[in-house]
Amino acid sequence: MNQVITEQTATPELLRELAQQLRVDAVRSSAAAGSGHPTSGMSAADLMAVLFARYLRYDFSAPENTANDHLVFSKGHASPLLYALYKAAGAIDDEELLTFREFGSRLQGHPTPELPWVDVATGSLGQGLPIAVGIALAGARLESADFRTWVLCGDSELAEGSMWEAFEHAGHAGLSNLIAVVDVNRLGQRGPTMHEWDTASWAARAAASGWDVQEIDGHDLAAIDAAYAKALAADRPAAIFARTKKGAGVSAVEDQDGWHGKPLADPDAAIEELGGIRSIGVTVQPPPPQQPLKIEAEPVERPTYELGEKVATRGAYGDALAWIGGLDERVVALDAEVGNSTYAERFAAKHPDRFFEMFIAEQQMVAAAVGLQTRGWKPFASTFGAFLSRAYDFVRMGAVSDADLKLCGSHVGVSIGPDGPSQMALEDIAAFRAVLGSVVLYPSDANQTVQLVDAMRQHRGVSYMRTTRAATPTLYGPDEEFRIGGSRTLRASDEDAVTLIAAGITLHESLAAAEQLAGQGISARVIDLYSVKPVDAEAVLVAAKETQALITVEDHWPEGGIGETVGAVLAEAGSGTRLTRLAVTERPGSGPPEALLAAAGIDAEHIAAAAERALQPVGA
Amino acid sequence: MNQVITEQTATPELLRELAQQLRVDAVRSSAAAGSGHPTSGMSAADLMAVLFARYLRYDFSAPENTANDHLVFSKGHASPLLYALYKAAGAIDDEELLTFREFGSRLQGHPTPELPWVDVATGSLGQGLPIAVGIALAGARLESADFRTWVLCGDSELAEGSMWEAFEHAGHAGLSNLIAVVDVNRLGQRGPTMHEWDTASWAARAAASGWDVQEIDGHDLAAIDAAYAKALAADRPAAIFARTKKGAGVSAVEDQDGWHGKPLADPDAAIEELGGIRSIGVTVQPPPPQQPLKIEAEPVERPTYELGEKVATRGAYGDALAWIGGLDERVVALDAEVGNSTYAERFAAKHPDRFFEMFIAEQQMVAAAVGLQTRGWKPFASTFGAFLSRAYDFVRMGAVSDADLKLCGSHVGVSIGPDGPSQMALEDIAAFRAVLGSVVLYPSDANQTVQLVDAMRQHRGVSYMRTTRAATPTLYGPDEEFRIGGSRTLRASDEDAVTLIAAGITLHESLAAAEQLAGQGISARVIDLYSVKPVDAEAVLVAAKETQALITVEDHWPEGGIGETVGAVLAEAGSGTRLTRLAVTERPGSGPPEALLAAAGIDAEHIAAAAERALQPVGA
Repeated sequence: MNQVITEQTATPELLRELAQQLRVDAVRSSAAAGSGHPTSGMSAADLMAVLFARYLRYDFSAPENTANDHLVFSKGHASPLLYALYKAAGAIDDEELLTFREFGSRLQGHPTPELPWVDVATGSLGQGLPIAVGIALAGARLESADFRTWVLCGDSELAEGSMWEAFEHAGHAGLSNLIAVVDVNRLGQRGPTMHEWDTASWAARAAASGWDVQEIDGHDLAAIDAAYAKALAADRPAAIFARTKKGAGVSAVEDQDGWHGKPLADPDAAIEELGGIRSIGVTVQPPPPQQPLKIEAEPVERPTYELGEKVATRGAYGDALAWIGGLDERVVALDAEVGNSTYAERFAAKHPDRFFEMFIAEQQMVAAAVGLQTRGWKPFASTFGAFLSRAYDFVRMGAVSDADLKLCGSHVGVSIGPDGPSQMALEDIAAFRAVLGSVVLYPSDANQTVQLVDAMRQHRGVSYMRTTRAATPTLYGPDEEFRIGGSRTLRASDEDAVTLIAAGITLHESLAAAEQLAGQGISARVIDLYSVKPVDAEAVLVAAKETQALITVEDHWPEGGIGETVGAVLAEAGSGTRLTRLAVTERPGSGPPEALLAAAGIDAEHIAAAAERALQPVGA
Repeated sequence: MNQVITEQTATPELLRELAQQLRVDAVRSSAAAGSGHPTSGMSAADLMAVLFARYLRYDFSAPENTANDHLVFSKGHASPLLYALYKAAGAIDDEELLTFREFGSRLQGHPTPELPWVDVATGSLGQGLPIAVGIALAGARLESADFRTWVLCGDSELAEGSMWEAFEHAGHAGLSNLIAVVDVNRLGQRGPTMHEWDTASWAARAAASGWDVQEIDGHDLAAIDAAYAKALAADRPAAIFARTKKGAGVSAVEDQDGWHGKPLADPDAAIEELGGIRSIGVTVQPPPPQQPLKIEAEPVERPTYELGEKVATRGAYGDALAWIGGLDERVVALDAEVGNSTYAERFAAKHPDRFFEMFIAEQQMVAAAVGLQTRGWKPFASTFGAFLSRAYDFVRMGAVSDADLKLCGSHVGVSIGPDGPSQMALEDIAAFRAVLGSVVLYPSDANQTVQLVDAMRQHRGVSYMRTTRAATPTLYGPDEEFRIGGSRTLRASDEDAVTLIAAGITLHESLAAAEQLAGQGISARVIDLYSVKPVDAEAVLVAAKETQALITVEDHWPEGGIGETVGAVLAEAGSGTRLTRLAVTERPGSGPPEALLAAAGIDAEHIAAAAERALQPVGA
């Protein structure tokens, strides 16, 4: 059999054959790998066979074509089905199919964008749908494009709140270019899901969020076909809740518990039961031609601040964002309902069409950013630094997706003052440094912030900026240059006995401490380590050589922040210069910023005292 | 006016007076602080006045009484209302009320358990309801207790997916002891919410999740009273969606945008408009007497493994959990639908009554654990280490709550093999070290795992254990002792030239590397740094003194893990011994564990090579 199915020739018989082939290929690739999730793909084979043969519009020879539909496997573990579809569509051959999960193969255990047809890595459940919301937002709000965004969801992942953030946001935004196909196969990894085949509960919830909903038998080809047609015709996002059987088509595993994430025990028997190996091709419809995208950006003057002017870096972030929004029409901004605190509202005021209010849903915000960048947009997403911790898994997966994701967390550290510890980011440097290939910036003044926001725009990858709530004096002129990986030495002389290394609010405390120390006859070097990752190791090592002691000061827990960054530099170089790390070590409360900085031992007075202690002979 | 309201004397007139007093006191405390969220409390004043006067059962003089109801302010920023309630109930006096947000005051910007009537810190929105689910689960499933769990939720926070994880879980569990009161005041921080006063959408969704739902006017005292009565009578969790006006009662701010998180501009005028300062007391009903809790634990034999026996530490975790469940009837376990991978299922098999299947909802899982520990349970919550990143904000807030929270993340690092990077925890050490007061353990063999799981049981605070997917040889006898903060030196001699420091899978690679090095005439010390936080600095410093070079090896990103922990110890001591850090530095793919360890440069061969290089003279 060497048939090719097209939209026109897709008879029910041929579609059924195609679906069986997809099952067979899922069984084969998993058997070859000795691991994988064939049964989780077999349940959705009928759904995807109809999609590929009759509804998807995608040119597999030109994945860069922006008119292509998008297809996100939110249930990423159904990768054996996805790869079987790629084979049927002629994107990969049978030989490559059987490299599934091999070292070096593009066909990884869960899909990643190493495959040109995969937009984003999935495999952490509950992420594909919210990311698809971002893709659909790009099409609907920014591009007026005709592509559709299809998402294959699992039923187990409907327990993730992030899925309901997505339902809610897509419904609110009226994203009629988004179709969620939920493969309700009743069985999770270790047993039945909460609702099993009771699709009514989910359908009611999605409908309440403003979705067009359908409940169908996911093995009934005619019902599937009709459901897609209705979904495409809907004036709102559409969800198809399809009741299916896990492992459908193979009696040894069909609707049986205990077969999650395992190759079949007898693949040959399964293949025989499924009717044997086939090589049916599918001619997926190409997308219609598309108008070239025209976007224009209203120029905004570059913000500059005068030396000594007191400005919060969060304010400079907002100003800079508005400015680069004018420089670069690809810049978009998202905020989680705190734009008047992060100052993302200043971007919104200048570029309302490219601003996305994501409400208090940080996971959906970061996911939407990941979705937007799949279409070449440069998303800046902001909220309080503390609340970005809510989206940490999405940032982690963004790095797996090699996403171009720019994040800003405001209100960091105890220096926010009276709002108290729930609002203080004290772990954000550690968390975001521990993201593959990330950049972590912590500007100390407004002009520097502007430069670094533009550096984030130009940098491709995951970058994070932490900004300060309080207004602090402007230290640098508007034309001083700052780069990712750099640092700035603010005070230095041949007499320096000690080096103070800080960034953000504690840099200002360090400068004050250096003044105090000078009064006591101690010369202190002060380094602004605004690029925490990558770090300017050279500046640290020169200071370690030229001064007797280093003091790091940070409004952050001691773990994974500036102190450990510097410590690793020193230890790797075998420097014997002693490091003192000042950081927040006890649970802060509410109070004025100055009182909290003092209580944490990171204000000028404590820094000066630590420097004095560090210069005393050991044991003194 | 110095009246005291009781359940019997709570006329509508008096309740209205009480509600006005609560508003006045919210205005007063915020005015005194110069910051705070009075308007967010004023909207809910009528709701809470009726609750305190007529429905809450709580002995404010005995917050430790386990028969008391629970009241969680999920909208923690409404703290001025909460503290006004405490004043009315006689728990605090007017003088303390006016210390709101002062340095050292218990009345922080957002509530924390520094106040004895506060169970958990809130202020990161979307957490109070899922935590309350844990409290209610304790009452319903573990204690057969009569207390009720009341939660005041905001409408803005209904955008958080975690809220819907909670609705879903509570509905599934049929928690009739849980009542959510949603203060639908229409306005978020920077403008209208998605649904404003359209409570029908939320009510439909909650009803679909199995809740009893009501939509009322939240300023109609009779309607509020009737709603509470109906909610208490329901055989399921009850949600009251109450339409209110933000800043209700003061014309200058009522239902006005732009007054979030700000004291009123003219507090005196507001107080006058509200009818002036009052000192009405509320006699909150005490709880009924309660039967003492009887729980019995079925003893389970302590697991032991033979030297050399190949066992995965995740398996030993499951065995140990089952064992300590027999030792200590307060131990409970939760898992996010992967208990057959984390091996929490072994606890479930022995102690089914104390096991909670949380489905794929990591935020709800950690939140439930935080809720359970408020009633003295010792929760162990497990999933893949990578997916605990989903709940990072809940862990962060758990530390603010001073919660007794035990976490286990399995399937860490590239050594999981073919499932690929989405499933690999490579940032978990960094993330969990950067939690206030946390303990981070990374056992290297099965017998050690058992000891450390029991150490976690005995430790109060946030602790995290990372476990390995692969079976590795048992290194230690069952009676060797391991403690939090310890380490174990596995190979040591006076001839040692280099020290290899590792834990978990890389400890085994380090032992193999030491063998290889011995063959080349290089003696290597090997340290098992199983307690990554707190770290055994002494062992590190002795090795730095006695050997020429240190090599850390970890199946984790380089940031915030074992390498930086050791680096900080060396730098703080001013040790000049050079450190080499081996860690995962590039995006892994799928493949056999050995291939991935080799590709990451953290297998025995690469460790031995790094040791050789480290022993060459600098510049050679």
